[in-house]
Amino acid sequence: MNFPSKLIEQAVGEVSKLPGIGKKSALRIVLHLLKRSENETQSLADALVAVRTQIQYCRKCHNISDSELCSICLSPKRDASVVCVVQDSRDVLAIENTGQYTGLYHVLGGIISPLEGVSPGDLKIESLLQRLKHAPEVREIILALSPTMEGDTTSFYLQKKLRPFSLKISTIARGIPIGGDLEYADEITLGRSIVSRINYD
Amino acid sequence: MNFPSKLIEQAVGEVSKLPGIGKKSALRIVLHLLKRSENETQSLADALVAVRTQIQYCRKCHNISDSELCSICLSPKRDASVVCVVQDSRDVLAIENTGQYTGLYHVLGGIISPLEGVSPGDLKIESLLQRLKHAPEVREIILALSPTMEGDTTSFYLQKKLRPFSLKISTIARGIPIGGDLEYADEITLGRSIVSRINYD
Repeated sequence: MNFPSKLIEQAVGEVSKLPGIGKKSALRIVLHLLKRSENETQSLADALVAVRTQIQYCRKCHNISDSELCSICLSPKRDASVVCVVQDSRDVLAIENTGQYTGLYHVLGGIISPLEGVSPGDLKIESLLQRLKHAPEVREIILALSPTMEGDTTSFYLQKKLRPFSLKISTIARGIPIGGDLEYADEITLGRSIVSRINYD
Repeated sequence: MNFPSKLIEQAVGEVSKLPGIGKKSALRIVLHLLKRSENETQSLADALVAVRTQIQYCRKCHNISDSELCSICLSPKRDASVVCVVQDSRDVLAIENTGQYTGLYHVLGGIISPLEGVSPGDLKIESLLQRLKHAPEVREIILALSPTMEGDTTSFYLQKKLRPFSLKISTIARGIPIGGDLEYADEITLGRSIVSRINYD
């Protein structure tokens, strides 16, 4: 693409580095900025820089936070006997939005992936073990990792590491998504959903 | 959505104001920034502010430009006898990328739209007429506006205004897109493509 201006070219280059944005969308965004007031662009730029430079991570659960401890860890309403282990902060948000979970979290900051060079040492696993040593109130660990090979590997590794604590360890249910069509479910999911069938009590 | 941090919430709010980006994509972008270096976010922010504050518009054709006259108006290789009238700078880029046009442009900055309160006075129409008065070398005006009701209205208005100059006035061809399927073309396009059929010479 030939740009009429170096400034446009530079801005399009920067914007198209963002995930899910190609050159065409980037150009559309940059040209849109030209139609808005300078203040609006300034506050967009400020918000981006602020989020990158001022964000903190909770000392306890490693979720993103505005202070040393995140609002979930600080809340007296949360059930401190359950800790849900997730891959990243986005998963915390997703689970929070269901409104079904009232326990605490532990954000690993990734999953074990030999292909991408992520080993257990790169994740907040040691931090989880240390945390559990000083938290006798914890009774259950929920491993809420994606049902992929990497996720399952990480879950398996965590199970081994957590065994000495004699806690209840569970994982989120795998099965046919609500609203999903049996016919289109893959064999592995369908197979697992039969094996882990739920009894009508 | 409940955000774990005010900074994230603010950044997501700003990013989701951009065209084509919803709350979920905005969150993905903001969390992606946290994974990159601070420098990268800073240069993204700088590029956005620079494009907004430093961009200029060509004095002659109103295309976006880094200087008083744009590179197209300044180029001695362009055919100064043809002026292509377009809605905005994006159209200039689109036509330039075809590599089929060597003339000059005139960017209206919008199209006549009574519904959105855009009248002829808001567009660079008077500027086009003034430009033509001082450019006897111009022989042809190509009206390259979208084939919508607003585009056709604007073309019709321009035709009337341009009549006194006794120039050749043309518009881009309407018809079945290359690779398009006759069967799925709408009736109006198909009808027009028969009326304006092209002779094999």
